[in-house]
Amino acid sequence: MQLNCDLGESFGQWQLSDEAQVMPYIDMANVACGFHAGDPITISKTLNLAKQHDVCVGAHPAYPDLAGFGRRSMAIALPDVAPLLHYQIAALEGMAKCQGLTLRFVKPHGALYNDMMANPELLTAIMQAVADYPSDLQLMIMSTTNHAEHSKQALYIGVPLLFEVFADRAYTDNGLLMPRTQEGALLSEDEMLDQVTNMIHKKTITTHGGQTLSLPMDSLCVHGDNPTAIKQIQKIRALVNDET
Amino acid sequence: MQLNCDLGESFGQWQLSDEAQVMPYIDMANVACGFHAGDPITISKTLNLAKQHDVCVGAHPAYPDLAGFGRRSMAIALPDVAPLLHYQIAALEGMAKCQGLTLRFVKPHGALYNDMMANPELLTAIMQAVADYPSDLQLMIMSTTNHAEHSKQALYIGVPLLFEVFADRAYTDNGLLMPRTQEGALLSEDEMLDQVTNMIHKKTITTHGGQTLSLPMDSLCVHGDNPTAIKQIQKIRALVNDET
Amino acid sequence: MQLNCDLGESFGQWQLSDEAQVMPYIDMANVACGFHAGDPITISKTLNLAKQHDVCVGAHPAYPDLAGFGRRSMAIALPDVAPLLHYQIAALEGMAKCQGLTLRFVKPHGALYNDMMANPELLTAIMQAVADYPSDLQLMIMSTTNHAEHSKQALYIGVPLLFEVFADRAYTDNGLLMPRTQEGALLSEDEMLDQVTNMIHKKTITTHGGQTLSLPMDSLCVHGDNPTAIKQIQKIRALVNDET
Amino acid sequence: MQLNCDLGESFGQWQLSDEAQVMPYIDMANVACGFHAGDPITISKTLNLAKQHDVCVGAHPAYPDLAGFGRRSMAIALPDVAPLLHYQIAALEGMAKCQGLTLRFVKPHGALYNDMMANPELLTAIMQAVADYPSDLQLMIMSTTNHAEHSKQALYIGVPLLFEVFADRAYTDNGLLMPRTQEGALLSEDEMLDQVTNMIHKKTITTHGGQTLSLPMDSLCVHGDNPTAIKQIQKIRALVNDET
Repeated sequence: MQLNCDLGESFGQWQLSDEAQVMPYIDMANVACGFHAGDPITISKTLNLAKQHDVCVGAHPAYPDLAGFGRRSMAIALPDVAPLLHYQIAALEGMAKCQGLTLRFVKPHGALYNDMMANPELLTAIMQAVADYPSDLQLMIMSTTNHAEHSKQALYIGVPLLFEVFADRAYTDNGLLMPRTQEGALLSEDEMLDQVTNMIHKKTITTHGGQTLSLPMDSLCVHGDNPTAIKQIQKIRALVNDET
Repeated sequence: MQLNCDLGESFGQWQLSDEAQVMPYIDMANVACGFHAGDPITISKTLNLAKQHDVCVGAHPAYPDLAGFGRRSMAIALPDVAPLLHYQIAALEGMAKCQGLTLRFVKPHGALYNDMMANPELLTAIMQAVADYPSDLQLMIMSTTNHAEHSKQALYIGVPLLFEVFADRAYTDNGLLMPRTQEGALLSEDEMLDQVTNMIHKKTITTHGGQTLSLPMDSLCVHGDNPTAIKQIQKIRALVNDET
Repeated sequence: MQLNCDLGESFGQWQLSDEAQVMPYIDMANVACGFHAGDPITISKTLNLAKQHDVCVGAHPAYPDLAGFGRRSMAIALPDVAPLLHYQIAALEGMAKCQGLTLRFVKPHGALYNDMMANPELLTAIMQAVADYPSDLQLMIMSTTNHAEHSKQALYIGVPLLFEVFADRAYTDNGLLMPRTQEGALLSEDEMLDQVTNMIHKKTITTHGGQTLSLPMDSLCVHGDNPTAIKQIQKIRALVNDET
Repeated sequence: MQLNCDLGESFGQWQLSDEAQVMPYIDMANVACGFHAGDPITISKTLNLAKQHDVCVGAHPAYPDLAGFGRRSMAIALPDVAPLLHYQIAALEGMAKCQGLTLRFVKPHGALYNDMMANPELLTAIMQAVADYPSDLQLMIMSTTNHAEHSKQALYIGVPLLFEVFADRAYTDNGLLMPRTQEGALLSEDEMLDQVTNMIHKKTITTHGGQTLSLPMDSLCVHGDNPTAIKQIQKIRALVNDET
């Protein structure tokens, strides 16, 4: 189980995440590409830290919305999805190359990620765009009960998938995240560590309704944007290390 | 003598240059990277046209200033020059790769170009940044009477140079462009065609003061942002073709 | 019947609309506020032209999306609508004051306009935001068969409405614009002049299906972003002048 | 002696300054206008806090440079200074009006402030722009040994000045701030409190070289962007209150 974390999300004077604290504990860094966060200097520093800690780097492309941090859905026309992603992937790939790193994967950010999981046409366009990018890149999407269908489609299009699960979020019986607006959507630390333990040992998730879901789990999303989250990463890292 | 032209300088709804009219007559396209112009869709279309017409593509990085079209000097700190350029070069390189094209050169845009020629520390930083970018890229700079010194420095840093001359601008006796604010700075069409003829046949420029300058001339800058300019490109193309 | 036109939609180097050609023929200028178009210099020039031609000025606020020209829906949270509009209205009001002009109305732009007409919660938020702005401003919305309901709501909230109709677009039987993707959505010039004549003389619209709609018509939207459109404005102006 | 502080400098997700902690101790808030920081939501919240604490509000306009936080000089053409300032002042004035507040002053930000003090043509353009804005606004500039000349010019142009001094910076014998790159440029807390005491009681500054400068001091600049700075504001506030 690989730990992934959104990083490189500072912008100029504005700092977000203490990346030097996070990097030692994660396996994969989803690096902002400049559209929701991440100016060139921030990206460069983040990639340099990733290199120091031998962390695998991916592009974290987003809707072009700095003021909204890429968290607001935008009605991008489907033919525009490929250039929008290719530009951001390209920027990250070349910046990584400057550090001697190889870009390995793409994980859409924020509203683009959510819209991709909700809108099959957008998911298809994103799969196609990543497949068409002329480097070997994996696409990280959310692991849901539709995972078999997603795998089949990705195989057909020709893009390897990474299925992602979430440490600190409650799941519904149909394998989606409970909306943050609902009570119980965010797990307590103990619940989170239980959920991670189940994920690691049994590859299962116990839903809010008490069901047991068995889902593919290539990577676990953790957060690094506040001191509490950083402490939790260390605990999750320990659980993962115990297993291996 | 290769003809180069700034292209990809539309932005979203706003169109600049009729690129389909320009592409057949040029050898090198300096493609905007998104900082002074050039959204991802524009870049993608421009690169596709370049491919159709077998035009060599370069990155045309700029200060981050859409409202000023990259024509206003900005006091970028020297350590920030490399990430600023690398991000833009990377974006173009990857977008070009998506079209099966290889990025060949870098030509700084607007105020960044002028500042580079006026400020030796900035020129050094730009040479170093292009040399450090992990692909074989040439740097296009202005051909001046300092060309030998520039060549020596570039050799030392490890970046191949392309020396550029200008078709439609009068030169001063010390080998610089006459400021646009001075009378006679912009050549008439006849003067321009004479100047180009001299450049092609004799590798010389007759200055506004009547001196004859002998300068290296790898590439000739032409413009495509208005109908008159596009007709002039065709005439310049004819002069170049006659020679070869 | 007042003619309104979107203006001030250049941005820096990129020009849109020949405003000096349009201004003499219109009554109301919807001036871009900087979020989809309109840098401060463009806004200043547009307002100055409006003053010269005694044209009434309004703010034309938009989603923050330069690359998409405000034509892509964005999921703005409802509590954010007021600051988003107030900032843009305020910028225009103060810039107008600098020219000795008084801002008179607000017309949302592009996707914000369309979303407002499709989403009652957004319409309410926009009505409230304009009502809460501490100057006397009218809100321009599309005249539809729901106009009575819209008027009642606006009266309750406390914002005067201006109902807008479109010269060059076919209407459906339920009083909406035919989508541009459908054949016949854009009227020919003759059809357009007929439609305008009916609007002026009878306050009616003949729908694509042959129905006759009677709608409130405070203002007629015309376009100035191409030479053909500008010629059509003159013909529409002549029709309006004949009437009065 | 009024305490002024730069506020409203968050942007979307990125937070800067704990404004609720700062507002109770200051007299004047210099509120970012969206060009170097300050999205509409941030501005609205900041103005609301200013209202609660009865703090006088000013516009804090900047070069258009989010990634550089307005700290990089930009070569703005002199005729463009007025629209650049008017747009930002207007946005703030209208947003303030929405809170029932009256905009009182303008303090240029960052590189624009420094360039204004170094470049007499730019200072003149800024004085003129503020004078031409059709509301009663004061312009805050740095108090230097040229203050008499600045006052005379401002009187001629018709803009009231506010002279600003700095609590935590060492002054040179010619009345300028020591560059931050020089040792001793930033005062220790004790030195700072001594300097403020002298400012309050004697209206003098003891320079790094030991000279005593007597300067006009309408307002004292304090900082709120870190916890230490906020504690220091409270101590400075206590010194000012003791005096009055």
